[in-house]
Amino acid sequence: MSESGSRALGVGLLGVGVVGSAVAEALLSGRSQANVPGSHPLELRVAVVRDLTKERPVPAGLLSDDASSVLSNPAIDIVVELMGGEEPARTSIAAALSAGKHVVTANKEALAKHGGELIALAEQNGVRLLYEASVGGGIPIIGPLSSDLLANEVKSIRAIINGTTNYILTRMSNEGDTFDDVLADAQALGYAEADPTADVDGYDAMYKIAILARLAFRAPVELDSIYREGIRSIDPVDISNAARMGFTIKLLAVARDDGRGLLVRVHPALVPNEVPMAKVDGVLNVCEIEGDLVGPLWLQGRGAGAEATASAVMGDLIRIARAPGSQTRPRGLSATTERLAMDDHVCQYYTRLVVQDQPGVLAGVAGVLGNRRISIDSVIQMDSDSGRGVADIVLMTHPAREQEMQAAITELTALESVVEVASLLRVEDYPDPS
Amino acid sequence: MSESGSRALGVGLLGVGVVGSAVAEALLSGRSQANVPGSHPLELRVAVVRDLTKERPVPAGLLSDDASSVLSNPAIDIVVELMGGEEPARTSIAAALSAGKHVVTANKEALAKHGGELIALAEQNGVRLLYEASVGGGIPIIGPLSSDLLANEVKSIRAIINGTTNYILTRMSNEGDTFDDVLADAQALGYAEADPTADVDGYDAMYKIAILARLAFRAPVELDSIYREGIRSIDPVDISNAARMGFTIKLLAVARDDGRGLLVRVHPALVPNEVPMAKVDGVLNVCEIEGDLVGPLWLQGRGAGAEATASAVMGDLIRIARAPGSQTRPRGLSATTERLAMDDHVCQYYTRLVVQDQPGVLAGVAGVLGNRRISIDSVIQMDSDSGRGVADIVLMTHPAREQEMQAAITELTALESVVEVASLLRVEDYPDPS
Repeated sequence: MSESGSRALGVGLLGVGVVGSAVAEALLSGRSQANVPGSHPLELRVAVVRDLTKERPVPAGLLSDDASSVLSNPAIDIVVELMGGEEPARTSIAAALSAGKHVVTANKEALAKHGGELIALAEQNGVRLLYEASVGGGIPIIGPLSSDLLANEVKSIRAIINGTTNYILTRMSNEGDTFDDVLADAQALGYAEADPTADVDGYDAMYKIAILARLAFRAPVELDSIYREGIRSIDPVDISNAARMGFTIKLLAVARDDGRGLLVRVHPALVPNEVPMAKVDGVLNVCEIEGDLVGPLWLQGRGAGAEATASAVMGDLIRIARAPGSQTRPRGLSATTERLAMDDHVCQYYTRLVVQDQPGVLAGVAGVLGNRRISIDSVIQMDSDSGRGVADIVLMTHPAREQEMQAAITELTALESVVEVASLLRVEDYPDPS
Repeated sequence: MSESGSRALGVGLLGVGVVGSAVAEALLSGRSQANVPGSHPLELRVAVVRDLTKERPVPAGLLSDDASSVLSNPAIDIVVELMGGEEPARTSIAAALSAGKHVVTANKEALAKHGGELIALAEQNGVRLLYEASVGGGIPIIGPLSSDLLANEVKSIRAIINGTTNYILTRMSNEGDTFDDVLADAQALGYAEADPTADVDGYDAMYKIAILARLAFRAPVELDSIYREGIRSIDPVDISNAARMGFTIKLLAVARDDGRGLLVRVHPALVPNEVPMAKVDGVLNVCEIEGDLVGPLWLQGRGAGAEATASAVMGDLIRIARAPGSQTRPRGLSATTERLAMDDHVCQYYTRLVVQDQPGVLAGVAGVLGNRRISIDSVIQMDSDSGRGVADIVLMTHPAREQEMQAAITELTALESVVEVASLLRVEDYPDPS
């Protein structure tokens, strides 16, 4: 196999939106050739779009509205899939791999749902499937997990990997506004989609942590094994309560093997303010990887944006241009990875109860928790709203099992004196730095 | 070329100190085989030590005190050089490459001084020279710069890459102790060497930033072109003055092309407290890379330690085990990289003058600065020590050119009313986050 050589590799682009446009510009300006002499030149040959009449940074002669002009074109060596979404992306990626073409994609949903099968297909066809851009924009995360850190047994990955929710939570925290108000504003500013479900309900973060967990723990991670909870129900009063107690609320994506088994979970969590993760604000992303040799690593940067994502796509294209004979060789799957159920997760809980403003209520609440062997760390607040005859009880528990806590919540809800369990939030546990 | 295959690759270790022991343990436990199926197994075949009688985590049968048992041994495919220092490391690395062996090294000094020639030698011999462990312990930095980020034009690298000085400055800052006291304590604790010159005078950081700058800017970086200043002269009073003004003093290593040219510099600097770099404490390392596509990236972790460094060495070994036919292919050197002289560096300056405690002194000082067109941002403090008849003037200037500031300092020193220019420290400029 000759790795150097001057034969140009033909690139076909599926999708020329904001990221696709940035990738097209990088290819057309010859960035990869300038920086990596001796590798195969990359040549943009076809760019497939839905609407041929729209203005694009691609010469009209290279545009097509027919995916087969890429997928069935022998002049295309590498397919860059930037359509997003499950279909037709998955089918296109599979078709490209089956046709012996390398694939570079930013598609977290297709990778999270069908990564195992697509990686196997790449291997069978002796080509590469690269997807750095699917997680964390331009931050090198997939690269380090696939290469630099391979000698490590990864103990945990803890990340803020959805910019939209981090932006919303940061603004709610700074301004005291409600979720609905900040969301509407974020939509107006283009930071949130018209249909915000994928972001605010945690699907996007779930896809990304699934991809990272498969790589890091060498285990297939079924999406339905991931605990997922979004940020729609976060109330400004919980944000201010948390702040008063020294915490910031963040949407975390965590994959951790604590010795009992691997648990992958996405949910809002109280992060202690003295931990750097509490300060990662706005659209920044961060991925904290803990390996047994390397210790804790912190990789932070812009998690989205056309140019940052194009940096990752181009990085993958250059990997192929340097060694087109290389093959995708997945990390071996570990047969021994035990799974931990969310029910067995242990953490401190923050909960806010709306109760009848009458004597004995707290004793009743404490009794329910005590019967479940959940002890109370502190009762933070008891504001009464005398006009409505109700009061808020805000509790922080000592560490408890999720199953016990959920059972206790059901029992609390059934108490006559409890109007509503308004919030239940987990406190993320950070070991003391050492 | 077959990349998969079961032929084991023989590894020879030069140096079995703390890092070498951790690497030997990783190799002997078969870490790479477990995590990367399909790659060539790595087999530790010889480990060269100076003292054969010392206890090592290596079977006695593999130990030798003769470097030629590695360098001239046809059973050795990869030489891992962990002796450190310029010689005999450089000669051994060159001999190994010339003999057609791959080399993995953690040697920043040899790489910084002779990297250009050694990389060329690797290329000529069709083998690889990998050195992730030379900078930042186990933090993937060389890997991302060599691969993931290749599509970027790097604009700047700003780093805290010497753990010893960061530990000393952190303790001086927290405890108010003098440099000499903290150094003595750090030596007793093993955080500083008996001869601390390489760390505290900035040589170690200089070697590391030279390696990073060559990669990032595709330009040879001669060590004598790097501005270097250590932390010996940092006084606790400057640390507390800086703190009162909202800054933390850090030893920074910076390589930046601001459009006028590339300037590489290592010196203590005032870092604004609201910038995350001000909070990177103790032995942590951080490397902030700004690329034109990816924006600012933040890579942080343990910058030293046997296991963290072994993570990087093993990562490089696994790169070779996966594709032993690959060659070192340096990024093309950029012919167009202009250089900026330190004299043309522009920043705000903090200075502390010990002056005669008499009227008119400040006017004289302001006059000297004014003649050099250096304007004063603020006069922070004027403490007088009436017993000695002297006072401290602490000034912060507006941005000024280094050359003008140095000339002004010479003129200030010559003033009769100025006893001493006790401190001159640069304020690092951080753009507003956007």
